[in-house]
This record gives sequence, C-alpha cells and structure tokens, in this order.
Amino acid sequence: MLPKALEDAIEALGRLPGVGPRTAERYAYYLFRSDKKISENIATAISDLHDKIKSCPVTFALIDKDEEVSPLYSNPSRDKSIILVVEEPLDIYAIEQTHSYKGTYHVLGGVVSPIDGITPDDLHIKELSDRVEKDDAKEVIIATNPSIEGEGTALLIDRILHEKYPELKITRLARGLPLGVDLSYADQITLQAALDNRTNI
Amino acid sequence: MLPKALEDAIEALGRLPGVGPRTAERYAYYLFRSDKKISENIATAISDLHDKIKSCPVTFALIDKDEEVSPLYSNPSRDKSIILVVEEPLDIYAIEQTHSYKGTYHVLGGVVSPIDGITPDDLHIKELSDRVEKDDAKEVIIATNPSIEGEGTALLIDRILHEKYPELKITRLARGLPLGVDLSYADQITLQAALDNRTNI
Repeated sequence: MLPKALEDAIEALGRLPGVGPRTAERYAYYLFRSDKKISENIATAISDLHDKIKSCPVTFALIDKDEEVSPLYSNPSRDKSIILVVEEPLDIYAIEQTHSYKGTYHVLGGVVSPIDGITPDDLHIKELSDRVEKDDAKEVIIATNPSIEGEGTALLIDRILHEKYPELKITRLARGLPLGVDLSYADQITLQAALDNRTNI
Repeated sequence: MLPKALEDAIEALGRLPGVGPRTAERYAYYLFRSDKKISENIATAISDLHDKIKSCPVTFALIDKDEEVSPLYSNPSRDKSIILVVEEPLDIYAIEQTHSYKGTYHVLGGVVSPIDGITPDDLHIKELSDRVEKDDAKEVIIATNPSIEGEGTALLIDRILHEKYPELKITRLARGLPLGVDLSYADQITLQAALDNRTNI
C-alpha cells in the first residue's frame, strides 16, 4: 500500500537501535520531504563508517583508517604510565571533554555479561595486562559504567591485575551525587557512596 | 578528536527529526559495530526515497515514480463520491489499516499555521474544491488532527466548501474516548465530546 521505496526506507531505518516502526516512518517521511542533500549526506556518511574507521591495535579506540595508533596514545604529552579503562570507544570522548585527564586509554569492547554470552575472553583484558607491563604502568583507572555488569567487570579486572602486578595502583571513578540531581531523587546506593566518600568543603 | 568519518555520520544523523547528538552518536556507533550490510541497506533506501517516490497529482498521496495516480484513487472499487481529507500522506495508511473505508483520499500537505508561515494557499484546498466538482462528490470527511491548527483548518475547509457547494455533506471524525484510556486520565474536552456523542449500547 505504501510506495515500495518508502517501505524499504522505513524497514531499513527501523534497524537503528531503539527505533520502532513509528519513528522509522517519521524519519523516512522527513527525509522524503527535506532537501535531497540531507539524504545524500546521511547515505554517504553511513557508507564511509565502515570504509574509513578502524580500531587502534593498542588501545582499541576508534581511529582513522590511515592512522597507525590512536593519537591519544602516540602523542608524547600523554602519560603512558596511567591507563584509564572504558567499556566502549565513545566513553573516551566523554572523559576527554573534561580536559583534565592526561593519561592514556584502553577500550574493553564491552562488559562481562553471561546473559549475552560475553565472557572475559571476549574483552581486551589480556591486551590491558600486557600493556601494564610494556608501558610500565603505575596506575589503572577502571571507568566501567556503574551497572551490575560494569561493576562485575571492574572487580574481575582488579583481581587479574592485582594478582599479576601486586604493586600496581588500581582505582575507579568516584561514586556520588551527580550535578543537578535532587537529594530526594538519588538512589540509596549512590547516596550511601556520597556519604561514605564525603569531602571537606 | 573523533575519527572524521564518525563525526560526519553523527552530524548527518543528527539532522533526523528529534535526534540529538547523543542519539546520533548511538546510531553511528551501532552502525559502525554492526554488519556493513545494514549500513548499506539504509544508505540505499535513503537515496531511493527521492528517486523512486512522487506525489499523486490528484490526491497528493505518495506513489511510486512509475504510477500515474494513486491506486487508492484509480481503483474502480473505491467510491469517488466520498473524499477523506488528511494533513499528511502517512495519515492515509492509518485510515487504511481500519479496512473499513472505501472512499478516496485527499492530502492537504499540512495545516494552516500562521506561526510557521503556512497559509491556506500553501495547502491543496483549491484542488480539493475542484475535485468535489469533478468527481461529483457527495461527502467530504475532514480528518485533520485534533490539534488547534487541525481544528482551525477543518473549520476553514468547511466554510470554503459549504459556500461553494451548499448541498455537500461535510463531516469529521468523531471525538470520544480512545481504547484503553482510563476515564480519569481523559482531558475535559474529550470527555465532553464523549458525553455529547454518547451512543446506545
């Protein structure tokens, strides 16, 4: 009943994460009504994603196809003795935006999640351990997400690294109240952490 | 800091309606991680939108480029003496899914909205009026959205058509309680309409 091309676009856009048929319809119809240039830009940009981006072989950050390793690693101003460990490549850019971290990064590529069939071997933990030795790291900051899987993965990495490098300092991001969240809306665990880790004014 | 191709994709996807930088990031990263085929499908489907779809010159529904007029108009089983008027092409498919309407459609292409600079002349009202005469229509069902602009546009069309065709029956979709909505959550105007238009059980 719908024109075939519109149906195809709705189906294709419906493959994006969290996009249902209604939203896909809205996207497709919007693109149809808008200037052709917008559709062309999106089509080109999406095609380029696979052709022009690769994973850094050292840190597993995303880099341009013609780069050897991530500039956040190769740059001599970055302190290689500190490694901040994140779940996904985009987490790096969240940290970078604070402009206050000068160490290097290591992307795990996910978290241990038995339900999704992701075991420790699927993550770049071995490579992290090797880097600690190779770069003579003094500190590993574990910055996994504050989820059950994230916490579990953090504890696992802590155990593995501590066993192999008893001298290594292993830290994680502080838990506490985020900016702008009312005390009465904070969950119990966050509030407990905020209380335990209270600081002098 | 991000690879250029990823930044481009995030910017391009951020042009979709209601998509902010965070969501665009999620889409782009998802596409990068998924099979290349998914990205290719979306890219092709989006490009085809402009090349393979056009507006029906009679009803302004969306049709395949190689069709003359909408099959919902040309099909002899559709009753041309009833015209159902909608704001946007996709509204047609919502009505069609009820499988209970056998008349034809007419797409306005929007609603009168002074704030957005959309005047009656920007809509296909003149073409609707011409169709009433040409198809010897007996009834026009105005199915604009139950918004302020939709109501205003409905009243305007009613006035224009009534003046020109005093015999024409002009109706609109019933107001009442939608399925599954608790009485206590219904707004006052809807409840008033549901009461005024109450039916025998």
